[in-house]
Amino acid sequence: MTQRKLPYIQSKQVVATSRLFKVESLGLIFSNGVERTYERMKPSGRNAVMMVPVTESGDLLLVREYAAGTEQYELGFPKGLIDPGEAPEQAAVRELKEEIGQGARELVPLKEVVLAPSYFSSRMTLMLARDLYPESLEGDEPEPLEIIRWPLAQAEELLTHGDFCEARSITALMMALKYLQSER
Amino acid sequence: MTQRKLPYIQSKQVVATSRLFKVESLGLIFSNGVERTYERMKPSGRNAVMMVPVTESGDLLLVREYAAGTEQYELGFPKGLIDPGEAPEQAAVRELKEEIGQGARELVPLKEVVLAPSYFSSRMTLMLARDLYPESLEGDEPEPLEIIRWPLAQAEELLTHGDFCEARSITALMMALKYLQSER
Repeated sequence: MTQRKLPYIQSKQVVATSRLFKVESLGLIFSNGVERTYERMKPSGRNAVMMVPVTESGDLLLVREYAAGTEQYELGFPKGLIDPGEAPEQAAVRELKEEIGQGARELVPLKEVVLAPSYFSSRMTLMLARDLYPESLEGDEPEPLEIIRWPLAQAEELLTHGDFCEARSITALMMALKYLQSER
Repeated sequence: MTQRKLPYIQSKQVVATSRLFKVESLGLIFSNGVERTYERMKPSGRNAVMMVPVTESGDLLLVREYAAGTEQYELGFPKGLIDPGEAPEQAAVRELKEEIGQGARELVPLKEVVLAPSYFSSRMTLMLARDLYPESLEGDEPEPLEIIRWPLAQAEELLTHGDFCEARSITALMMALKYLQSER
C-alpha cells in the first residue's frame, strides 16, 4: 500500500451546535490540488467500550434498550463512554454494573473499532468480560434495561435475529466467538 | 423476551442544521411515566449498501479512502447511499463501478445492519459481490480511490490490520467469510 500524503486542512469551523452534537466544517486540499469542504462531528476526545459478558454457565448477557434513532427496542451488548480520567477497563466494569448488575474480574480486549470514520473520530474498544460477580451501580437509564440471557451454544442464531443488527455488537460477538474458539 | 410498550413521542423538533446534518430533539414519555429529551439525527429515509467484492482469482477488493472524522486514510469495502428510486442491487453495482471500476453479476445479501441505533435510523445492506466485470462510472471523489487486492486466504489478517477498523466493514467481511464457508 502506498502511503498517500494526507489532505491539508486549511480551515475548521463549527457550523451547527445542539445539546449533544457539534458539527464541524473542514476545508480540505487533497494532494492532487482538489479542494473540498467536508462535514463531520467535532471530535470530543472521548472513546467508548463495549463488553461481551459470558457467564460461568455459558450464557451471553445482552441488553434490550430503547433506541431513539430507530424508534425500537434494540438488542445489543452493554456499552458506554469512558469518563474523563477513567481507564477503559474501569469504564467497562462500571458500565457492566450499571447496565446488567455484574462486575467482571477478567476483561480481554478483542478489537478497537470506529463507527463511521468519515464523520466520527471516536474509537470503541470491544472486550470479552468473564468471571462475573453480582454488583450494581445506579445508571442514568429512564427505565431498567431488560437483560437477556442467550446460550453461547446458540450464538450463531443471534446473527439472524432481526433485533440484533448493530454493526458494533455483531463485530463484538464474532470476535468473541473467534477468541473463545482459539482457546479450546 | 417481553415486548415492552414503546415510549410515547410527545414532541419532535429540529434543533440544529448544517449542510449535511439535521439534529432532532425528541420529547419521550417511557411506559413507566419517566420523561426524557433525547437527540438524534433526523431520519433522511435513505439507506445504504456495502459490498464485499471477490474476484475470480480469489482476492478481496478493498478501497483506501480519506476519512475526515479520523483524519486518516482508512481501509474498507466499497459503499454508498442508495439514490432515490434505486433498488439496493442497482446502487450496489453503481457504487462498485464508481469506486473500484467493476460491475457485478452476482450479489448475495448477507445482513442488514444499523450504525448506532440510538442516533441514526438508516440501515445498510451488506452484500457479497461476485462475477465481476470491468466497467467504470464517474464518482464524486476528490481523488481516485486506491484499490487494494487482498487474498481471501489471508482474510483473517485483515482483522488485525490497524487501518481496517470500521465495524461495518469488519461485520461485512466476517459475514462474507461465513457465507463462503457454508458454500463449501
